[in-house]
Amino acid sequence: MTKRLNVVGIGNAMVDILARCDDAFLAEAGVEKGIMQLIDMDRAVELYGKIGPAREVSGGSAANTIAVIAALGGKTAYVGKVKDDQLGHIFAHDMRAIGGEYETPLAGAEAWGETGRCIVLVTPDGERSMNTYLGVTEFLTPGDVDPAQIADAEWIYLEGYRFDGPDSHAAFAKAIEACHSTNGQVSLTLSDPFCVERHRDAFRKMIQDGVDLLFCNRAELLSMYQTDDFDAALKLCGSEVSILACTDSENGAYVVSGGETIHVPADPVAIVDATGAGDAFAGAFLYGMTHGADLATCGKMGNLAAGSVIAHIGPRPEADLKALFEDNGLI
Amino acid sequence: MTKRLNVVGIGNAMVDILARCDDAFLAEAGVEKGIMQLIDMDRAVELYGKIGPAREVSGGSAANTIAVIAALGGKTAYVGKVKDDQLGHIFAHDMRAIGGEYETPLAGAEAWGETGRCIVLVTPDGERSMNTYLGVTEFLTPGDVDPAQIADAEWIYLEGYRFDGPDSHAAFAKAIEACHSTNGQVSLTLSDPFCVERHRDAFRKMIQDGVDLLFCNRAELLSMYQTDDFDAALKLCGSEVSILACTDSENGAYVVSGGETIHVPADPVAIVDATGAGDAFAGAFLYGMTHGADLATCGKMGNLAAGSVIAHIGPRPEADLKALFEDNGLI
Repeated sequence: MTKRLNVVGIGNAMVDILARCDDAFLAEAGVEKGIMQLIDMDRAVELYGKIGPAREVSGGSAANTIAVIAALGGKTAYVGKVKDDQLGHIFAHDMRAIGGEYETPLAGAEAWGETGRCIVLVTPDGERSMNTYLGVTEFLTPGDVDPAQIADAEWIYLEGYRFDGPDSHAAFAKAIEACHSTNGQVSLTLSDPFCVERHRDAFRKMIQDGVDLLFCNRAELLSMYQTDDFDAALKLCGSEVSILACTDSENGAYVVSGGETIHVPADPVAIVDATGAGDAFAGAFLYGMTHGADLATCGKMGNLAAGSVIAHIGPRPEADLKALFEDNGLI
Repeated sequence: MTKRLNVVGIGNAMVDILARCDDAFLAEAGVEKGIMQLIDMDRAVELYGKIGPAREVSGGSAANTIAVIAALGGKTAYVGKVKDDQLGHIFAHDMRAIGGEYETPLAGAEAWGETGRCIVLVTPDGERSMNTYLGVTEFLTPGDVDPAQIADAEWIYLEGYRFDGPDSHAAFAKAIEACHSTNGQVSLTLSDPFCVERHRDAFRKMIQDGVDLLFCNRAELLSMYQTDDFDAALKLCGSEVSILACTDSENGAYVVSGGETIHVPADPVAIVDATGAGDAFAGAFLYGMTHGADLATCGKMGNLAAGSVIAHIGPRPEADLKALFEDNGLI
């Protein structure tokens, strides 16, 4: 039986506020470079008051991933919470405009907080330092997950960041159950080394018990297994999960499955803004998985999409990904 | 006596919502190509529901001009109205973040409408078609103009678009009076051929009576003087105003003053998005005027800034304009 959807993503819904700065600014503003740090509204207002002119684009890690799958023609849905405010409308518009389903109820005017946003500071080296005000997206609950929608998907994609909220654990559990009820498969991204630090035990249990495909990067993998030995971590993790897809910056990606490790090198790309690179990798990889590609090809697709996203400011593809994939003989 | 400010701009404050589309989409959605059309909130919601994923950046014609002057190091202020909502905060942030004064009181929650926005549809030829919901920016009143601030500026820059509101005529009159009271000079942009159509008589009177420097493009000039004879229009207009700076797309610009016409050719540029080109030309030209440049150099500055802005999506400079001007020996 063919399912209606290829992938349903669940994660933190937010709008990115992207601005350039130099390293001195990061230091002065107290922003830790290269990671995602959670901030409250007071800090968001303070930091926003210091940064230069910005642009606003819909973001959110899993939402970016879903946007890539949809841009390639995959059938998608997304679950993540925004408020009934202007930023929330922007997020919802962009999510639907890519062609996927997005039906999570808006938090009403009475809800505490606003639509989540991430102040993304991009330094000249292309690195991004993220400052996330979660707002209403923190309050994703099991009620926001529609089991019928999940049951109709080949894969679900869970964003590690969304583990930063107790009700969301229950929402994830509900999604995994609905997914398994129709033999769907579960993918998870570790999101960030500090996110791994916060949720190592929960992630480990999920990897061992319910995850079919794990996405992470080198730093996240090392943090997960608390080691400096990358090869050993790849092997150990590969023994705990059916498929591991681990990115390694300009070195490309490693795909581990059935005791075999495939290295998929990436073509060199000038990094303008690394925001969304990992999200794009996961999206293209999942597109490949749901469209009959072998693992090495999935890895190539992931690298190509990531390379496209880091060549411009902003977390989602701006080039015609389908045409890019065709030009590269991948579809 | 040196004044505190080089230029104060007055115009429609708004956030641009930029999306790509093809010509067939414009036709189907009933959008007139290449011009600015005013729309109400219902139409804004309808059109927004049809367009693809977008990005949001602060816009507004005079605000873009002021952003260019500030980016070059000029001392600026801006007058234009937004609401106390999320888009209004984005506009205000970006205006202040460029380093200029922006003190127009926010319209409160009780005001009718929201912060203005412009749905800018960019076709593959780089042309932009603008759909403007004015919202609260329509209600700029004389009360929003601070005569002391205007009196402390060498130039004011008036946006033709803002003539689409009766109270704003009075606001402009108040600004012109304050400007002249300390021997400041008045510049005006005709904004758009259809804007000229709506306000031809008022514009003509201003050009003959109070404007020292007029900005327009070929289409606006021809509409202003209701002729197809570009050379004749340049001459006639040049006889009515001290300085006329008229852009002519890839052909560069014509500067007419004291009976002399200077043609300033532009270097060829691949057009990605024409949004903001005229605004950037005016900004750089005014920067030149307030920093001792001769008219031909002002024209070169204008062309260079316009070329920088049309090379990317979005109405304001993203490159380092100062460095660009230095590299070209203009500063």
